[in-house]
Amino acid sequence: MPTVLALAGGVGGAKLALGLSLLLPPEDLTVCVNTGDDESFHGLHVSPDLDTMMYTLSGLSNEETGWGIAGDTFTTLEMLGKFGVDTWFNIGDRDFATHIRRTQLLAEGKTLSEVTTALSRSLGVTQIVVPMSDDPVKTVLTTNEGPLPMQRYFVGRKTEPRVSNVAYLGADTASASPGFQYALTMANMLVMCPSNPYLSLGPILALPGVRQLIQEFSGIKVCVSPIVGGDAVKGPAGKIMTELRKDVSCVQVAREYRDICDVCVIDTQDQGLASEIRELGITPLVTSTIMNTAEDKIALAKEILTLAA
Amino acid sequence: MPTVLALAGGVGGAKLALGLSLLLPPEDLTVCVNTGDDESFHGLHVSPDLDTMMYTLSGLSNEETGWGIAGDTFTTLEMLGKFGVDTWFNIGDRDFATHIRRTQLLAEGKTLSEVTTALSRSLGVTQIVVPMSDDPVKTVLTTNEGPLPMQRYFVGRKTEPRVSNVAYLGADTASASPGFQYALTMANMLVMCPSNPYLSLGPILALPGVRQLIQEFSGIKVCVSPIVGGDAVKGPAGKIMTELRKDVSCVQVAREYRDICDVCVIDTQDQGLASEIRELGITPLVTSTIMNTAEDKIALAKEILTLAA
Repeated sequence: MPTVLALAGGVGGAKLALGLSLLLPPEDLTVCVNTGDDESFHGLHVSPDLDTMMYTLSGLSNEETGWGIAGDTFTTLEMLGKFGVDTWFNIGDRDFATHIRRTQLLAEGKTLSEVTTALSRSLGVTQIVVPMSDDPVKTVLTTNEGPLPMQRYFVGRKTEPRVSNVAYLGADTASASPGFQYALTMANMLVMCPSNPYLSLGPILALPGVRQLIQEFSGIKVCVSPIVGGDAVKGPAGKIMTELRKDVSCVQVAREYRDICDVCVIDTQDQGLASEIRELGITPLVTSTIMNTAEDKIALAKEILTLAA
Repeated sequence: MPTVLALAGGVGGAKLALGLSLLLPPEDLTVCVNTGDDESFHGLHVSPDLDTMMYTLSGLSNEETGWGIAGDTFTTLEMLGKFGVDTWFNIGDRDFATHIRRTQLLAEGKTLSEVTTALSRSLGVTQIVVPMSDDPVKTVLTTNEGPLPMQRYFVGRKTEPRVSNVAYLGADTASASPGFQYALTMANMLVMCPSNPYLSLGPILALPGVRQLIQEFSGIKVCVSPIVGGDAVKGPAGKIMTELRKDVSCVQVAREYRDICDVCVIDTQDQGLASEIRELGITPLVTSTIMNTAEDKIALAKEILTLAA
């Protein structure tokens, strides 16, 4: 079995990471998670993608909504509403505990990496989950409604505004987290999960030196297209690609990772596009990439891990 | 009707304040609340007595427990427990919203007075609720288990340790809050609610200049004894008085306020002690001081307000 470094954003990334986690010894899987969506809500540090990953790997996640903890209630948020604050970002009562604890530990001087390790372990996550950086990076979309931070665009405005640019504020002075850097050196397989190339993996790849380190990565590099049959499996990737005047296809995904990818996993629906990917110098792997059940996740993870052999 | 400044701690104080609030125009009642119990829990600023007051005056309080909000749930706290933190201090999900919002506003640079006004108004409190001070004061008990901050002693150790001293750390450099100072000048009746003389009103009276300002207060000064029939109606006042080798009686309460009190309201059970109070130069008012029902609270408040005439 290979030692795997997976790069991931939200739900799609967490699904594949879960599949990988069910096949690999926990110490052989490092998941590096996007923190470009991190926000302060009610004075608390919220890391949406880290939370989705921790909750998914610990079995707590709400699979219906794609965010938060299954069965969570919303009493605290409702009461906050009485104090006249904006409550458009849904935070459940159990979810609040995560943000309260994270904020407290950060205030005590711990790094986001240290905090993430502590929270993950407490929730029973045995894999290595690391933030992409301990420094603040903010993904901001230029839209027809002005600049919008990622969660404001995604949750607050329900991805409705038209996007003309995506920027990663702070990325130029941020450092890849120690755990991410370590895994980049030690892993022998890199998996770019089926996450949004612009909003989820974009911030990770924008960190200084990261793209070059991946180019120089000695193991096999695999990406999984989040675009299937001409649209995103979930989320706004397809809409954003259209607005950025890009081709909404797995071929475009492969193009984005052209210099840092050996194999691009595409869905059987996109079989006809395999030759276009091959023309980019990337080996296409055609398989079922839709992950609804645990079996789906394991099957896709297994196909990917086999590539290491 | 007089303009009233009430000094209060927790439950007993809040009960009488509620009675007063049901008889007075809201702008004629200022309640100055002890903040010597304030604590940081999970990185959040908790003001137990201010909360009890706000929840009582807004009709949200849990009358069964004497703390928190009626019908509150404890989901967030339970989840915080999973992160390995101490959860001995009960905070409900709705209650958490208060602490989250207070902490956020304080972090934005607002004073505790400003925050208290904002939170009170949001909850529908129309009376003027002010913290005794915007500066930190910490009530610390010297006990046979070492020094214990008030909530650690009261909730964490269930008032079991033996108390040999009570100190108000920071009180010597703290200032009475602007609203408290204003009411000391403008009110024509001062009511010292039936709160613990050492743990609730003690911190207020320890603020520099406050005792003298009350001595010089031009209106009538009334205290209500929290000791009835040789013990506290609620809480550890009786136990602490014993441990501090004081007489556990309404006479001792009157003694504590001897220089700042015109009338001491004692319960009919203590009728026999009226003459001892008179000997202190304080006028005793004997009436029923046990406040179980709304009618009890209004009746006691009415008797007190009549003293202004």
